Amino acid sequence: MADQTSDGPRFAGGTMFREIRLASRPSGWPTEDDFEMADAGPPDVRDGQVLVRNLFMSVDPYMRGRMNEGESYVPPFELGKALEGGAVGEVVDSRVAALAPGDLVLHRYGWREHAVLDAGQARRIDRLRGIPLSAYLGVLGMPGLTAYAGLLDIASFKEGDAVFVSGAAGAVGSLVGQIARLKGASRVVGSAGSDEKVAYLIEELGFDDAFNYKKGRVHDLLARAAPDGIDVYFDNVGGDHLEAAIGALRTYGRVAMCGAISVYNAPEPPPGPRNLFLAVGRRLTLRGFIAGDHAGRMGDMLAEVAPWLAEGRITFQETVVDGLENAPRAFIDMLGGANVGKMIVRLAADHA
Amino acid sequence: MADQTSDGPRFAGGTMFREIRLASRPSGWPTEDDFEMADAGPPDVRDGQVLVRNLFMSVDPYMRGRMNEGESYVPPFELGKALEGGAVGEVVDSRVAALAPGDLVLHRYGWREHAVLDAGQARRIDRLRGIPLSAYLGVLGMPGLTAYAGLLDIASFKEGDAVFVSGAAGAVGSLVGQIARLKGASRVVGSAGSDEKVAYLIEELGFDDAFNYKKGRVHDLLARAAPDGIDVYFDNVGGDHLEAAIGALRTYGRVAMCGAISVYNAPEPPPGPRNLFLAVGRRLTLRGFIAGDHAGRMGDMLAEVAPWLAEGRITFQETVVDGLENAPRAFIDMLGGANVGKMIVRLAADHA
Repeated sequence: MADQTSDGPRFAGGTMFREIRLASRPSGWPTEDDFEMADAGPPDVRDGQVLVRNLFMSVDPYMRGRMNEGESYVPPFELGKALEGGAVGEVVDSRVAALAPGDLVLHRYGWREHAVLDAGQARRIDRLRGIPLSAYLGVLGMPGLTAYAGLLDIASFKEGDAVFVSGAAGAVGSLVGQIARLKGASRVVGSAGSDEKVAYLIEELGFDDAFNYKKGRVHDLLARAAPDGIDVYFDNVGGDHLEAAIGALRTYGRVAMCGAISVYNAPEPPPGPRNLFLAVGRRLTLRGFIAGDHAGRMGDMLAEVAPWLAEGRITFQETVVDGLENAPRAFIDMLGGANVGKMIVRLAADHA
Repeated sequence: MADQTSDGPRFAGGTMFREIRLASRPSGWPTEDDFEMADAGPPDVRDGQVLVRNLFMSVDPYMRGRMNEGESYVPPFELGKALEGGAVGEVVDSRVAALAPGDLVLHRYGWREHAVLDAGQARRIDRLRGIPLSAYLGVLGMPGLTAYAGLLDIASFKEGDAVFVSGAAGAVGSLVGQIARLKGASRVVGSAGSDEKVAYLIEELGFDDAFNYKKGRVHDLLARAAPDGIDVYFDNVGGDHLEAAIGALRTYGRVAMCGAISVYNAPEPPPGPRNLFLAVGRRLTLRGFIAGDHAGRMGDMLAEVAPWLAEGRITFQETVVDGLENAPRAFIDMLGGANVGKMIVRLAADHA
């Protein structure tokens, strides 16, 4: 893949315009058979559009929801059509005054080697020195915005709060913990699915404590990690994590409900939190959100987080998989927790 | 009871100072054996205090929670001590400049024939013409405040919202529906536990539709009553009502979690809502509250609701039980839904 695309981008035909399509709607856990690779052929680029050669694409938990038929907060992916998702690419042809070949852009048409975009669908990246391009799919992209808006706007984090985040070694969770720490949390606790991730949270990211949720009841593990309770829970997983967090929340506690990865692939929804009634007496607030509603906060997020990143006060990890053909596997592995940090698919070997 | 107290209030001894104490902590549904009547004898009234002869007292669902041992949002009732709760009474002795014998006051020391209060514990009632005194325990008291603050502040009701309220024939629920209607709800739907209550909601209170939740799955009944979904759910019961409401809520929907009467007496908490994960994609907010936090809104509530009441635009019902000795039975019946509107215990027959 990478060799072919690096020969030269423009209308060269062949395998340059490959894309991954949804072959069937997964039942439970997706398998690679649910995806198919196809060649869309060279596209038309019309006035007001740009042709973009994709360099990196993102695989994210929310995509699983879009693979189901029926109602969701975004329309479902269509069978036999290319999937969509965040991507960073280089403009290789432009019929738009504001964008020129060589410009780097962030957009929503990943899962393909080239994308044709209307000008309004591409956000130009002013790349910061020393920050890898893929970061614009992670800490400086939608995961960063998700962590920032979820913690500050949805969970109304304030200095002195004790914060618990699940999926803490993931793209969003690792930022939630670090932003909370930098903004004066009294305690930051995370959960993850392996001892290696737990060590990473404590040693690399500065979490006060963390636990491997596979090693006991979440309720007990959380009680040990946050013996005085918590004020904020940033929920990436749902299920027993949410129940345990509700039990640990103090009066006026808040939950930002960002995802429920434990539920996405379950054939039957698991029972909801049995202790939800505690929300009355403790005056808890649980609020679901999706980052797309908070695009207006992207500038604030970049203004705060990019300097932290440049100064080394925030760190992040990526798990990078090479080649469009490996994107379905990367997606499935990400759902199973194989990644540390943001799961990224690199579509062109000549960019870092 | 009534005869004895109406003979003359002051330090007459005998059965005038009877009170209901918590004899044992109920396991599941309370029984009358969990209560005992005792004579506390004439109290001391010190400088800064008033002696109040109670005329009406309230029995409310939240009291069940205080009968349990351990954590709650208010301290548990103590075994062997008098219960507490909202009451309206007449000052019969005063060592406070601001209150004189004959003044009517609202306070928190029900479940007894006389109460000694510090001045700050008594709120003087400026009774409106034609409004019965007991209304200050209902529509113009804590239930009114609960409905008002829950609907407007917690659920952020706005004109055009479709509203569903459970326990809709109860003291709080009946006000939620009427306030929503008067403030321009696009649709007001309620649930209740008998066909009589359902008829009352539609015919007397102006609900657009209502259903008897004992006659089917709440999910199905709600889908029929609110086929286009809801924006606000005011939750008085929890359990399957909450699950059905989450399923019916539209994007940016809000739940005011006021109580969970279905849970209070369950020996094991029932499963939580299996569809809670929908809160993410639909950006739902669920918020628990207790009215006591919103005492600052009492003036706003009275300013809006008292005129509606005087004009007959809001109606309410009461179920009135006579005599302190019948208060435990009234409380138990209220938990079981035997009341229509506010359940009140009248302690003195000479007041209406």
